[in-house]
Formats: sequence, C-alpha cells, structure tokens
Amino acid sequence: MTISERWLLPDGIEEILPPQAARIEALRRALLDEYRVWGYDLLQPPSAEYLESLLTGVGHDLDLLTFKITDQRSGRLMGISADRTQQVARMDAHSIPKIGVARYCYCGEVLHTKATHLLSSRSPMQIGAELYGYSGLDSEVEIVSLMLSSLQSAGLKQITVDLGHVGIYHALVAETELSASQQTELYGLLRLRALPELQQWLAAVDMAEEHKAIFLKLPAMAGSLDDLELWVEEFAEAPKAVLAALQTLKSIALAIRQAFPEVRIHFDLAELRNFNYHTGLVFSAFVPGFGQPVARGGRYDHTGEVFGRSRPATGFSSDLKILATLVVSDWAETPGILAPASNDPALAGVIRSLRAQGERIIQLFSEQPESDELGCDRVLVQDNGQWHIQLISQNGQV
Amino acid sequence: MTISERWLLPDGIEEILPPQAARIEALRRALLDEYRVWGYDLLQPPSAEYLESLLTGVGHDLDLLTFKITDQRSGRLMGISADRTQQVARMDAHSIPKIGVARYCYCGEVLHTKATHLLSSRSPMQIGAELYGYSGLDSEVEIVSLMLSSLQSAGLKQITVDLGHVGIYHALVAETELSASQQTELYGLLRLRALPELQQWLAAVDMAEEHKAIFLKLPAMAGSLDDLELWVEEFAEAPKAVLAALQTLKSIALAIRQAFPEVRIHFDLAELRNFNYHTGLVFSAFVPGFGQPVARGGRYDHTGEVFGRSRPATGFSSDLKILATLVVSDWAETPGILAPASNDPALAGVIRSLRAQGERIIQLFSEQPESDELGCDRVLVQDNGQWHIQLISQNGQV
Repeated sequence: MTISERWLLPDGIEEILPPQAARIEALRRALLDEYRVWGYDLLQPPSAEYLESLLTGVGHDLDLLTFKITDQRSGRLMGISADRTQQVARMDAHSIPKIGVARYCYCGEVLHTKATHLLSSRSPMQIGAELYGYSGLDSEVEIVSLMLSSLQSAGLKQITVDLGHVGIYHALVAETELSASQQTELYGLLRLRALPELQQWLAAVDMAEEHKAIFLKLPAMAGSLDDLELWVEEFAEAPKAVLAALQTLKSIALAIRQAFPEVRIHFDLAELRNFNYHTGLVFSAFVPGFGQPVARGGRYDHTGEVFGRSRPATGFSSDLKILATLVVSDWAETPGILAPASNDPALAGVIRSLRAQGERIIQLFSEQPESDELGCDRVLVQDNGQWHIQLISQNGQV
Repeated sequence: MTISERWLLPDGIEEILPPQAARIEALRRALLDEYRVWGYDLLQPPSAEYLESLLTGVGHDLDLLTFKITDQRSGRLMGISADRTQQVARMDAHSIPKIGVARYCYCGEVLHTKATHLLSSRSPMQIGAELYGYSGLDSEVEIVSLMLSSLQSAGLKQITVDLGHVGIYHALVAETELSASQQTELYGLLRLRALPELQQWLAAVDMAEEHKAIFLKLPAMAGSLDDLELWVEEFAEAPKAVLAALQTLKSIALAIRQAFPEVRIHFDLAELRNFNYHTGLVFSAFVPGFGQPVARGGRYDHTGEVFGRSRPATGFSSDLKILATLVVSDWAETPGILAPASNDPALAGVIRSLRAQGERIIQLFSEQPESDELGCDRVLVQDNGQWHIQLISQNGQV
C-alpha cells in the first residue's frame, strides 16, 4: 500500500473540505432558519443509542443499515443512528411533554453500513422536519409546503413533487385473502414495477379477477391531475378506502398547486417506499439531472406507539450533502483582508473592530512571506499613523 | 423494565431538546463565525473512518475511547471519531494541497466509549480550530487569542488561562538515563501530582540528586508571571531547552496579557496532559464554577508526519454542549405569531412575507384549538379585508 492509498477514506464516507464545508454550513443555516420561521423547533437526537430504541417499530431495512457497537457501561447493544425519524418518534413520545401539535426539525450526519442506492453516501447529512399530533390533511399540506419552500430557499429550481398513498395498496390487499408472505411478494413486485413477473405471479395466485386487474394496472398509474380523475373512474368499484386515498391525493395536490404554481405535481400510485411504516401520503421531490429524490417524506402515524405515546406524524428529510452539490448559487467565501505582522495596539484595535463587522482578517506572522496568503483582496497599511484598507490588486486606497 | 426505563438513553449519551438545541445552534454559529473572521476555514472530518487513520500517531488513550465497527465493504476495521484533531492532521497532510499557513475549524459530535472524567459526556460536540504550517511563537499567541476571543463572544466571563510547556519535562528527562517504562512511571506520578509517591519513587531510582530535586519541585510550580520569574532563577543550571520553554511561556503570556488584560493568566509546569502528542505549549481555559477546562489545546508538531506531510501545528477545542450550559445569556426563542386556519391567498402572502423577515409564524390547522399553540405572543387578524398583527395578551393592535 502506498501512503496515498493507505489513508483513503472508506468507500461512500466523505470528508468535506473548504470551501465546500462553508457552503454546506450556509445551506444548513438557510434550511434550519426556514424551518424555524414555520414554527419547527430544533432538536438533536443522539448519534448513538440503544439498538432496541433505534429499530423498534421500523423494518428490517434500518436494521441492516445500522452499525452496531457494544456499550461498555451497560453491556447492551447500541446502534449508530442511520435515520433520525425513529429517534424523533421516541423523543416525541418519551422525552417531550408537549401536548397538541408539535413541530420538530433536526440536522446531523448519520451512518449507513451500505449505500442505499448506487451513488449514495454512507454518511449522509440528514436534515428534515416532522409534525406530530395532527392527522388532518392540512398538516400534510404544511409539511409538503415546507419541503418545497425550503428546497426553493436553498436555490433549487424546476422541482417536481411525486405524490403517492400507501392506503391504496393496503385497502386493495385487505380485500384479498393473501397470506403475509404473499403480500410481501406482491409488494416487492409492485415496488419494482416488474410487470411481466407481476402478471405471472397474479396468474398463479388465488384471487378475484377484478382484484388481479387492479394490481396489474397499479404500476402504470403514474401521471398528472387529469390522470388522477380517470383513475377515480377506474376505481369506481374499489373499496371506499381507495377512493378516500385518491380524494386525499387530489385535495393535497390542489392546495400545493395553489401555493406553488411553479412546481410540477406528479402522482404515482405504485409508490410504496417504506411501506412498512408509512400509513398514508408518501411524497418525493425531484430536480432535473439527479435521478434520486432530493427530499422525501410521508405520513407515519403511530410510530411512537411502542414508546408509550401514539400520535399522528408526518415529515420529510433530505441529504444536505446532495443538496449542496445541486444548488447552483453564486456562493463563495468572501475574500479577506491581510494585516501585517505588528504589535501596534492601534492595529489590534482596527482588526478587532473589522472582525466585529464580519470582515475576515488574516494577520501575517512575523516570519511569514506575504505571498503565502492568497485568499485576500485587501490589505491593511499604515499611513501617517493611521491604518487604512487598500485593495491589493490596484494598490489604490479604498 | 417499565416503558420509561426501557427507552432511556445510554449513560453519558444525550439528546438535546428544544429550546436548548436552538441555543446550542446559536452558540455554534457565533463560534464558527468568530473562527471565520480570523481566517479559519471550516472543514468536516467524517464521523467514521478506518481505525488505522484514527489511531496512527496518537496514543493509547484514543484507542480505548474509540468505538470500533467493521466496514462491510472492505472488511477493514473502522472507528467512530472520538477526537477531530487526528482527523484534521490527516486532512492537512493528505487531502488539502495548501502550502504555507493553513487555518481550519470544525464542529461535530464525537463518541467516546467511556467518559473522560467523572461528569463528562460520552457524546461531546467538539468545536475547535487548528493552525498548520507555522512554528513561530506568534502562531501560539494567535491560537490562544482566538480561543479567548471566541469564549468571550460565547458570553463566558472571568476566564483563567493555564499555560504549560511539555518541553520542560522532555528536556529534564533527556538529561537522565531513565528507561522508557521508568519515564512512563515518572510521567504518571507528575501528572497526578502525587508528591509522596513521587518522593518514594525518586528515592528508589538511579538519578543525579539535582535532577531529583527538580522533578520534586515541578508539581508545585504553578503560579503567576512573578512566580515564573522565580522559577527561571531556580532553573539557572537546567538544560537550555528548559530555559527556552520558560522564555516561550513568558513571551506568550505577555502578548496575551496585552490583548486580554481582563483574562487571568496562570502557569503550571507540571501540566503534562496528552504529552504523547503535544510538543510544546499546552493551555487550558477555565471559568468559575466548572472544575474542568472549557477549552484546551497546545502545540503538536508533526502529527501529520505519518500521513506524508510533517508540519507544525497548534490548536484548541471545546465541548459546545458544556459551553451552552455555562453561558449566562438572555437567549430565548422569539415568540411567534399565530395565524388562523384559512385558505385566503392574501393571508398566505402576508405569512410568506413575515417569514421572509425572520418572523416565526405558526398557522393553526382547521380542527386545532387555538389554546394548543402557546408559544405565540401575537396573532394575525383580519380587519376590513386586511391582515394585521395583534398582541395576544393586550388584544390591542400593534
């Protein structure tokens, strides 16, 4: 192993160098500020906790994603947080006495044992918001609006939002007499949109023909608000819950369209991601040129139940590292002002006051060549006992 | 196990609830902004990397503090970061091509297998700054000044800074013929300031009497600048390196006293913390009422050597969670403005513009009682078709 190979980072684990780290920090502040003005309170789940707390109520997916460590104090297994959603559920149920609607937001790096898709990081910086204690449609409208508003304030353009509803799948499955393992198979085929395999599978299974027909149509049910109207007709004979879910999707879409006319709305009835804990609406935001969602969320009621308090919940999250690569902005570190090496107390006073104004002052060390500091566009020079700022390039007084 | 016991966090691992999380966020921003105006570039080391990278060049202490996990992709051992210093050394040597002086800062939670002292967290939020590529005294003055300046901008008062220099111990030991294991024993006794044991140990060891006398004096050599002058006389016969170290301490102290006349300066020649990787000045900042340093640092040249680039380095770090508990400030979340449930586009516009001004607006849901939202001191009301802000308590128009 050469030195440069030896000190490589593990695949999918990133370090962030200047100036990208400052750019991510700026984005972090912009998003948290946006959440704040919507009334979302910042909280910080721990980066590790007992494994039982992390995996309760969520599926197998998170188990495989979670690094395990042993707590030397208790001998119990702990996990490194792989997703904040579950932790926020525990905190809402167990740590926070607030009754009624509660709004939370968070930001922090999580760790995954493996990448969740081909190009994804194993150390995403998850940032998100959650709304607890209200189940009405307007809470979903608020959370989707907050997601869109914060993506826009991050500088993302041409956003498409994908809406789906796991209630449709649940209601259709409830009509059949599929066993649990059959349900898992069906779910997998729908999720992959594997039409030929789905057809084959449905042919072999014991199910009413009209149900087979509907499951077969589901993967193709992706489109606009006009398409949604057509599906309502196609589902005329379906269980009431299916129609209710379609109505929910329509109402949310209309409210979003009113508030964000520039955002493209798309429906996808076979969107079944994380169906294990989602209970209603699921949504994702996309931007051109990036094949994965830039933010995603949904409704997941009762995730806090195991922790002693069952409440309605809806929320979304993003990977700040991905957002930072997508944002086309003119963000750049402001060039600094170079100060000479000097013990003059007057200079120290000038530097202090410029720094208090937010100026970035780099003071040369006594044996450091001036050419060493290239990030400055101005310099402090003494003239008649007074310190002045001069532009470096033009060498003229400002 | 009851539900409330079951979902406890591991000892020494904290979650941070509102409003404390927002307070820590405000402090985080204030400190990073302070580092920025001094020219320190933010970077973000990964929260985990190969164990070899984390433990190379640093002592056994960090090994025992570090949680180990297996990277499923490479089969190699990884560690969860327990201290950013080593990671920054790797990044300066290996990832960042900057020649000449480089200034870095960072902020992030680290994890420890065990508490480093009785009351400390196992998940401190380490924030700090590092200066690479310059070995002159003025770089130490800058880094101590930045530490003091940022603690002051965080709101801490009555700061004492403790200065020590590991070069004194190194130079004295070099005069003796102690074996490596004897050096470790001596180091341990000095560090603990265990005088009777030290006396006993020195009596049993083969060493010149004048050296024994000096080692015996070392633990008591703690005091002011006046005391330092006395020690210079006592060390008149000591190796040159000892006198040079004392001169370094004096010069740094004088520079700090000039810039921070309100800070109390204290010397401690037996301060040998992390002597394994420190190579010169060591310093700590204390405030009344907290028995541990609120920030600490030192010089640690050549930590990057194993990573392929050996450079002088000096820096410091703090635990943001501790700082937040010590800062006596009038920080509080600004009360919000309550907006009624309404689809009026005019209200949506008013809310959008108030949020853009930084106002925190909480909009009621259609079936949510007003009494549910207690964090607001104002409310939006409609009057003659116009939306106005009213104080909630006085019910009078603002």
